[in-house]
Amino acid sequence: MTDATPDDKKLYAEKMAKVQTARSKMMAKKTVKKGLIIVHTGNGKGKSSSGFGMILRAIGHGFPCAVVQFIKGSMFSADRQVLQDRFSDICQVHVMGEGFTWDTQDRDRDIAAASRAWEKAKELIRDPNNRMVLLDELNIALRYDYLNADDVAEFLLAEKPEMTHVVITGRNAPERLIEIADLVSEMKEIKHPFRKQGISAQAGVEY
Amino acid sequence: MTDATPDDKKLYAEKMAKVQTARSKMMAKKTVKKGLIIVHTGNGKGKSSSGFGMILRAIGHGFPCAVVQFIKGSMFSADRQVLQDRFSDICQVHVMGEGFTWDTQDRDRDIAAASRAWEKAKELIRDPNNRMVLLDELNIALRYDYLNADDVAEFLLAEKPEMTHVVITGRNAPERLIEIADLVSEMKEIKHPFRKQGISAQAGVEY
Repeated sequence: MTDATPDDKKLYAEKMAKVQTARSKMMAKKTVKKGLIIVHTGNGKGKSSSGFGMILRAIGHGFPCAVVQFIKGSMFSADRQVLQDRFSDICQVHVMGEGFTWDTQDRDRDIAAASRAWEKAKELIRDPNNRMVLLDELNIALRYDYLNADDVAEFLLAEKPEMTHVVITGRNAPERLIEIADLVSEMKEIKHPFRKQGISAQAGVEY
Repeated sequence: MTDATPDDKKLYAEKMAKVQTARSKMMAKKTVKKGLIIVHTGNGKGKSSSGFGMILRAIGHGFPCAVVQFIKGSMFSADRQVLQDRFSDICQVHVMGEGFTWDTQDRDRDIAAASRAWEKAKELIRDPNNRMVLLDELNIALRYDYLNADDVAEFLLAEKPEMTHVVITGRNAPERLIEIADLVSEMKEIKHPFRKQGISAQAGVEY
């Protein structure tokens, strides 16, 4: 790879210079800064961990931020634990869910827990001090009709402060949420070790 | 949503009990624990942030871990900064890249930087003390042929300690890497604010 001729090198430098120019032009046009509604959905891994990664990034910028966990309440979550132990001065964490619904088996209780979580989420989003709010697994609560997607969308459009980023995770994001979002990534499962290899959920990977 | 009849509630509880039983059976069969090769690829957002989220999770478990950044060397990265400032006791961070290649315009220098990064990555992966190693944007270095994908795959198959997780990010993951990976997620761009709205890269979202 290093036996390029002087001509090759020149061509490479020219090509990269063009890419740089095009990119600078593109970036110069992109001047608007605003708080985004970000949705991570799909059946693959990386939705929640990406949300927590963005929270870590916000903390790195010194931005006050907050996390509401809608579903995984009763499970141990190491990423949540680090935030609580080390960053409680800058990042609020609210664990509102009571675990997976197949463990509670009580729809009224699930709905009540989701409603409490959503009330807390609204309060955190309304507080203009918060620069990023992660609503972890909110899509699951919407999917099971514990909360109404139109209500959530309407609230975000009407009341989210201009500069606040709201990050929403969970598979099966409702169409209405995708419509109003600024940025949507679908995490697609290409390969998963549970499927074929009999590999269990593991510390550091799943929780 | 709360005006369910007693029959509805019974049906719901029965359905969820069945899901719980099926899930417990499925999980009971999944008993193997092993270090995984994890690839986050695709054109959507969330690849690196998910990698950093997994590192945060590993830290929450008290696992020594390490990050090698192959490309974003000269850019400010807030997630990296938090790790360096707050977790240097448990997480090593090595910034080996020299920024995006269109900024350096010197292929030999790009190749030399990628090779140094890969040597450091091998050293970190070989050290059995590390439970997770994130190779951030390695796929970009492979895509530009700064490194050889077969060499990387062969090293991981031959030398990665049994229990170490290796997380590799970047778009255009080479086929060979996908073949040997245990877990692959493709982050697909569904909507991106750069495209239509003239929104700039923002602190907390892109860096």
